[in-house]
Amino acid sequence: MDTKEKALKMHALWKGKLSTELKSPITNKEELSIAYTPGVAAPCLEIEKDENLAYTYTGKGNTVAVITDGTAVLGLGDIGPSAGMPVMEGKCALFKAFAGIDAVPICIDSKDPETIINTVYNISKSFGGINLEDISAPRCFEIEQRLIEMCDIPVFHDDQHGTAIITSAGLLNAVKLTGKTMGELKIVISGAGAAGISIAKMVMRLGFGDVVLCGSKGTIYDGAPYNNPEQQKMAKVTNKEGIIGSLADALKGADVLIGVSKPGVVTQEMIRSMAKDPIVFVMANPVPEIMPDDAKAAGAAVVGTGRSDFPNQVNNVIAFPGIFRGALDCRAKKITEEMKEAAARAIASVIPEEELSADYVLPDPFNPKVVEYVAKAVMDVWNSEN
Amino acid sequence: MDTKEKALKMHALWKGKLSTELKSPITNKEELSIAYTPGVAAPCLEIEKDENLAYTYTGKGNTVAVITDGTAVLGLGDIGPSAGMPVMEGKCALFKAFAGIDAVPICIDSKDPETIINTVYNISKSFGGINLEDISAPRCFEIEQRLIEMCDIPVFHDDQHGTAIITSAGLLNAVKLTGKTMGELKIVISGAGAAGISIAKMVMRLGFGDVVLCGSKGTIYDGAPYNNPEQQKMAKVTNKEGIIGSLADALKGADVLIGVSKPGVVTQEMIRSMAKDPIVFVMANPVPEIMPDDAKAAGAAVVGTGRSDFPNQVNNVIAFPGIFRGALDCRAKKITEEMKEAAARAIASVIPEEELSADYVLPDPFNPKVVEYVAKAVMDVWNSEN
Repeated sequence: MDTKEKALKMHALWKGKLSTELKSPITNKEELSIAYTPGVAAPCLEIEKDENLAYTYTGKGNTVAVITDGTAVLGLGDIGPSAGMPVMEGKCALFKAFAGIDAVPICIDSKDPETIINTVYNISKSFGGINLEDISAPRCFEIEQRLIEMCDIPVFHDDQHGTAIITSAGLLNAVKLTGKTMGELKIVISGAGAAGISIAKMVMRLGFGDVVLCGSKGTIYDGAPYNNPEQQKMAKVTNKEGIIGSLADALKGADVLIGVSKPGVVTQEMIRSMAKDPIVFVMANPVPEIMPDDAKAAGAAVVGTGRSDFPNQVNNVIAFPGIFRGALDCRAKKITEEMKEAAARAIASVIPEEELSADYVLPDPFNPKVVEYVAKAVMDVWNSEN
Repeated sequence: MDTKEKALKMHALWKGKLSTELKSPITNKEELSIAYTPGVAAPCLEIEKDENLAYTYTGKGNTVAVITDGTAVLGLGDIGPSAGMPVMEGKCALFKAFAGIDAVPICIDSKDPETIINTVYNISKSFGGINLEDISAPRCFEIEQRLIEMCDIPVFHDDQHGTAIITSAGLLNAVKLTGKTMGELKIVISGAGAAGISIAKMVMRLGFGDVVLCGSKGTIYDGAPYNNPEQQKMAKVTNKEGIIGSLADALKGADVLIGVSKPGVVTQEMIRSMAKDPIVFVMANPVPEIMPDDAKAAGAAVVGTGRSDFPNQVNNVIAFPGIFRGALDCRAKKITEEMKEAAARAIASVIPEEELSADYVLPDPFNPKVVEYVAKAVMDVWNSEN
């Protein structure tokens, strides 16, 4: 049975990948009177006096909502809220499996950013954190930003930041291996959507060097007209050499290629045109921008992909469980840029320097150190600043 | 340790009465590839083609949202959304304990009916049913009615209908015991809020007889001005004798007293003024309108309360788990009046006639026949009409 058939069979068997279970047994009137009326009135009144006690008397402090509008589900695009639910349930299952977090899948039946923002805000007191998922760009930027400002709990759009954090972690280790100099790297990103822009911001903040973003119509540069306001902002701060041209043009002499675009758009010739020992993370799914063996044959020193069947998988499950575990445990009100950076460095640090190799710059998601290191790093940053 | 202390201690220990658990183990890459990418794409695409397949491939068909705005929590009043959460979590725990239903507690941070309606509607595709809870009257009527019309899943405001269904079940059995004649009963309801009005509607539909609703200012009668549009509607169809006066006036010669009002508002003298063998359900919490022993001493033939320490407890957990179990299992789009009536009759039928007694007109909520009978009755009605 192939993966597709097996997935259909198992999903039909599970009928939902999660169940809710009782921490509080209710098998007789005595137990009923403690978990429900009349006993339950006591914690209600305590929370009414001090809302922070919701963390003491309810599940808020260990519960995350995983919310989508179904407009950018996996690589499937706008398949609608109901069709997005298997992915949301899967994400919730990952929250539990990797970080012990109770997560609730919610799909919103609207594509209007204002409606989505208000709906999420209106239910936000029910949760300790909100993970936005699979919301299409550029709507996702405004939705996340506004919700971060409105809510007093962490709001995190994993599609933007998860890939950025893990790619950055991989880059940190790859740079050590290749002896390249931080700050002087020339980085080309194929794909100027949510993920590409978020990666660009993070690698610049981490001080890797100059970034050139490359969309389907070529490089993003200052002076060109952009409908996407985020691309317009990025045009001002990236591409310092002002390269105007194709992905192939941008890659000439570049140290790093990060692909979050489409299968097969990178050729061996492009890899050969890069600087010595180029670092290549090609994360188009299910087929990368260039297959790892081809990239290596053309001289790539380190290659990562989004796939589990090749080394150095950029798998979001390396980041978000630990990030939310840390944010929930210190009751952070936001996940700041500094916390994301700390998460990237923590992920990189899971692999001891003496174990680093071209095929091992990113840790295995099932390595229990990952969530532990990331959670601690995130918490330390929040606690030191608050 | 008293109930209050014990409830606080246990709630602080549980930190939430529910956890989410995995039906789908995720302990290695193979399992990850089935429950999440790439396998999860297959059920997504099936649901995109046919939204009904959400019942096959996700938890929708066994998941209910328990939603409040925190405006009428227990007898505590408007304590706010966060403070209402222990009750919502408790309700969710009851859904699981009594009917195996996965339930999600959600509090909405708004008191505006329009906002509440839109928020609930926007997230409704995530669930197989919606249980509205502890929303104050008269807002609750419009909120429930509009959501029933908008959503294609059952929406049920338990505070309105639960008590009505169970009280009706108790009345059905009490009438058998006392030999009173259906259709000729004079029924007085003390309390003209959400619960009182809902009970009035149900006992009239079930054909018990004429109802007189009695609010804090006296009887509801045709011709008086009412701010509450529901009371105005009720004034037209109840109180056929046109009694204008106090609760004491209304009770003279009445066969049935149903109390959903305030502790201690009924005296023994009032009970003595009723017809022979009166049936008395006094459900003010935590202290009933009249204590059962006092009512019996004054001649009441059958007495029920909302308390677990007296016989004939009108406990909502007798009705809602079975109602939602049945509605989910037949994928009902609504919970119709006929389904509620069937639920009331099913609850009454749990007690064999030969076992009926003045102290046993309502079944124990822990009797497993309750959820079984109610679910089947609800399902049979839906299936016969659809």
